[in-house]
Amino acid sequence: MGKDVETAEPQAGEFTAKDYTDPPPAPLFDVQEIRKWSFYRALIAEFVATLSPPDANCGGVGILGIAWAFGGMIFVLVYCTAGISGGHINPAVTFGLFLARKVSLVRAIAYMVAQCLGAISGVGLVKGFQKAFYNRYGGGANELAVGYNKGTGLGAEIIGTFVLVYTVFSATDPKRNARDSHVPVLAPLPIGFAVFMVHLATIPITGTGINPARSFGAAVIYNNEKAWDDQWIFWVGPFIGAAIAAIYHQYLLRAGAIKALGSFRSNPNV
Amino acid sequence: MGKDVETAEPQAGEFTAKDYTDPPPAPLFDVQEIRKWSFYRALIAEFVATLSPPDANCGGVGILGIAWAFGGMIFVLVYCTAGISGGHINPAVTFGLFLARKVSLVRAIAYMVAQCLGAISGVGLVKGFQKAFYNRYGGGANELAVGYNKGTGLGAEIIGTFVLVYTVFSATDPKRNARDSHVPVLAPLPIGFAVFMVHLATIPITGTGINPARSFGAAVIYNNEKAWDDQWIFWVGPFIGAAIAAIYHQYLLRAGAIKALGSFRSNPNV
Amino acid sequence: MGKDVETAEPQAGEFTAKDYTDPPPAPLFDVQEIRKWSFYRALIAEFVATLSPPDANCGGVGILGIAWAFGGMIFVLVYCTAGISGGHINPAVTFGLFLARKVSLVRAIAYMVAQCLGAISGVGLVKGFQKAFYNRYGGGANELAVGYNKGTGLGAEIIGTFVLVYTVFSATDPKRNARDSHVPVLAPLPIGFAVFMVHLATIPITGTGINPARSFGAAVIYNNEKAWDDQWIFWVGPFIGAAIAAIYHQYLLRAGAIKALGSFRSNPNV
Amino acid sequence: MGKDVETAEPQAGEFTAKDYTDPPPAPLFDVQEIRKWSFYRALIAEFVATLSPPDANCGGVGILGIAWAFGGMIFVLVYCTAGISGGHINPAVTFGLFLARKVSLVRAIAYMVAQCLGAISGVGLVKGFQKAFYNRYGGGANELAVGYNKGTGLGAEIIGTFVLVYTVFSATDPKRNARDSHVPVLAPLPIGFAVFMVHLATIPITGTGINPARSFGAAVIYNNEKAWDDQWIFWVGPFIGAAIAAIYHQYLLRAGAIKALGSFRSNPNV
Repeated sequence: MGKDVETAEPQAGEFTAKDYTDPPPAPLFDVQEIRKWSFYRALIAEFVATLSPPDANCGGVGILGIAWAFGGMIFVLVYCTAGISGGHINPAVTFGLFLARKVSLVRAIAYMVAQCLGAISGVGLVKGFQKAFYNRYGGGANELAVGYNKGTGLGAEIIGTFVLVYTVFSATDPKRNARDSHVPVLAPLPIGFAVFMVHLATIPITGTGINPARSFGAAVIYNNEKAWDDQWIFWVGPFIGAAIAAIYHQYLLRAGAIKALGSFRSNPNV
Repeated sequence: MGKDVETAEPQAGEFTAKDYTDPPPAPLFDVQEIRKWSFYRALIAEFVATLSPPDANCGGVGILGIAWAFGGMIFVLVYCTAGISGGHINPAVTFGLFLARKVSLVRAIAYMVAQCLGAISGVGLVKGFQKAFYNRYGGGANELAVGYNKGTGLGAEIIGTFVLVYTVFSATDPKRNARDSHVPVLAPLPIGFAVFMVHLATIPITGTGINPARSFGAAVIYNNEKAWDDQWIFWVGPFIGAAIAAIYHQYLLRAGAIKALGSFRSNPNV
Repeated sequence: MGKDVETAEPQAGEFTAKDYTDPPPAPLFDVQEIRKWSFYRALIAEFVATLSPPDANCGGVGILGIAWAFGGMIFVLVYCTAGISGGHINPAVTFGLFLARKVSLVRAIAYMVAQCLGAISGVGLVKGFQKAFYNRYGGGANELAVGYNKGTGLGAEIIGTFVLVYTVFSATDPKRNARDSHVPVLAPLPIGFAVFMVHLATIPITGTGINPARSFGAAVIYNNEKAWDDQWIFWVGPFIGAAIAAIYHQYLLRAGAIKALGSFRSNPNV
Repeated sequence: MGKDVETAEPQAGEFTAKDYTDPPPAPLFDVQEIRKWSFYRALIAEFVATLSPPDANCGGVGILGIAWAFGGMIFVLVYCTAGISGGHINPAVTFGLFLARKVSLVRAIAYMVAQCLGAISGVGLVKGFQKAFYNRYGGGANELAVGYNKGTGLGAEIIGTFVLVYTVFSATDPKRNARDSHVPVLAPLPIGFAVFMVHLATIPITGTGINPARSFGAAVIYNNEKAWDDQWIFWVGPFIGAAIAAIYHQYLLRAGAIKALGSFRSNPNV
């Protein structure tokens, strides 16, 4: 109590009695969960959501239009699938949540496979469907733009994914959940806005990856040498960004704080 | 419990005690409902909402502007009419909700008639009001763009309407309602964003139908041969898309899950 | 009960037990209210909110940018002043709420005076502040664009203001308030979107009035003959639109329904 | 009671029984708070949030795109850091909240230092990372545009910061908090929109400051004479604007009203 009241959100201090509970860390291997229908339903939802054709027909709307299309799409997809699979739709998000022990290793791997298969199918659909369009835009594959070196591209992917995954952590934090009784509906909105902003900033550099499944799906179908050469950037960058976000949120701001308090404070009510 | 806790939304697992109730399926014929004022009030609301002039004066704002105009319009119209008629404003949405047994056959047909009459009146108003503008933009009628064949146009309408109707199902799911106590206000926001995105993606192909009433109203007033030749695409496509959305949501993700659980799981608390 | 359950929002039927109360109609003259500080505080809030400089520097952003600027501005202003004065900021809104007996005559007139004085001061500030800019854009005054006759301009103002004021009624309906426990925060969002859409549609015709105070303030400071000749359009149009919205919402959809039910229905639980 | 019921938000009148409590004013010096981990955690959060690279790669998206980028960024950053530090991210916001006695002097100064260090680091990162881009856009430094004198620039900064800080006060008002049970999630949305609008209006004049930390960070790294000459505008303007917002909100609309009521009203129940 006490000091927290001084921040702009006075209600922040009201929960020091800890009216939220952190769920226990997910086990690494969980035999039970793969015997449930809800597990496979979640995989279907991840597959279908990642299948949504990446940037079909965004050619005429400019960077601002593409950024809005991706931000809006993520908002709607997360909104629709959050109740079924958690709405990851992105291996980097799944990786970050796995590092924070929010999903088991089994579920994390199954989600990533479903996401990659969904993305491959989605790009394949676009190719079969609109061949002319597909070729004109280079198959939607992420490649480094001319004039940027690999280090810059990797950095852009790390920072962009950090922003996205950190927003996911903030929006699904059980502590926030206790404070506001209605997180799950609103969480998709900041996540969608984060995707919008990251696209505005990084489209000119890498075409914006931040989702390894989508980059992988586009590369598989396009099967172009340059796309494969740059492919590692769109896996290493997002996974590093997600790991930094998981560490920043879970170990510095949240768990770190709780542990530190034990040895740090002088009065017991913080 | 247990496994669901591992998803990004920990509260998803809290409702396995089933604190929501699915309303009973709507009867096919319901004599009682046509004797109530609320039934006719709903028809009036659907008529007036569909009447809103389609794309008056959007000529100067580009694809991004048109997409925002439609997305924003659907957000406001659904927000305003949701409490009175459910805010369908679109025969494809009504058809999807009928397939899922959320509205009776009588109500579904009456809504569709009101929507088509509203759309005809709306386009008629624009024509009488701004003749020069009306002619310049081809009466706002949906037609296949040059270079796209009928199959592509039909596919675009199916996918676009699937996204819209699936978002409607997600947003009005009673299960979501139990979890968040304030669905009705927020539901219009993802629905509006879905409409925005679908317009961004399909304006260059078909001018974006996904609402048969609007396509029909524009064709009636414009009365051009090409508009009539393509008209079936804007009924068949949206109805197929709505049917797929109804099947995906109701029979795969929701009811399917509940039935499957009975024979699938090994422990009773899922 | 019963039938309403069939609409997309099942919870619509849950309130037939009438868990909301319509506040009593406001008296026409109310001597008490003008003796309270809260009355004058509300006038100050209306004055300051209407003072916000109309379209300073929107020259470089196009119709879409101007529409966003106005929509976003109304969202923020209504959000900020709703708790103090109700956030009208517009004589047409005040007029509509007066017709629906939500504000007294005394308060309605005082609000309109405060709004007009605020708008005059706001435009005056812009003129003193950025003379070059002010002249280049014709003082922000609303005038009919070349090629549109007075009837079209009047119609555009009527329809545009109808959309705005009807959205205000929907968002502040006590019935909605009972259903969702958190109207006041969200109400500004659809109102802002309605303003955005109306601007997209009517900027090319009249420069978009729908707010007589703003049109009046710009005309007073600009003091140009054409602006004064067209001025009546920006009062008559919005007031007619607001009156139609008040009648549609209060007497057809709401009160009309309640009265009609008395003589119409055959079973008592509707 | 009584009169307030007449406004558009009937629930405004329901809280005269004062179901909210204003927290006590923050002390000027508070030795306790600097001994807690939560204080340093807040500083880290302010540092990281202000570090977000200012306008990387916004060159291709126009004024509307830049305005969206900043508005969206502030929405996401405030959303993510509100629970940890209050989400100021801006010395002018911190100054306004200090004047209103919502943060102690110690915390205010520490926040400002963290924000400035964060902004310097952020611009430094951009410079190291994308040298070519950095130079092309003048280091993102705020300078008066050609054709505007210092008075106009100062005025634009004062008005812009007033709008931002007043929105912050409105969104975090304990009175609003009592009325709606879920302020902290929604507060970032109007704040983000306010930032969006202010950018639309003032980018052509000063490049939009309204955040002294960002202006300072850009000037330190760019180290250009003109940027330093104009630097005072981006401190004096925002601080004056924040002070006016604090006075308007705290002393005229809120506290002023409560004091005035004591001597003003004739009946006790207001």
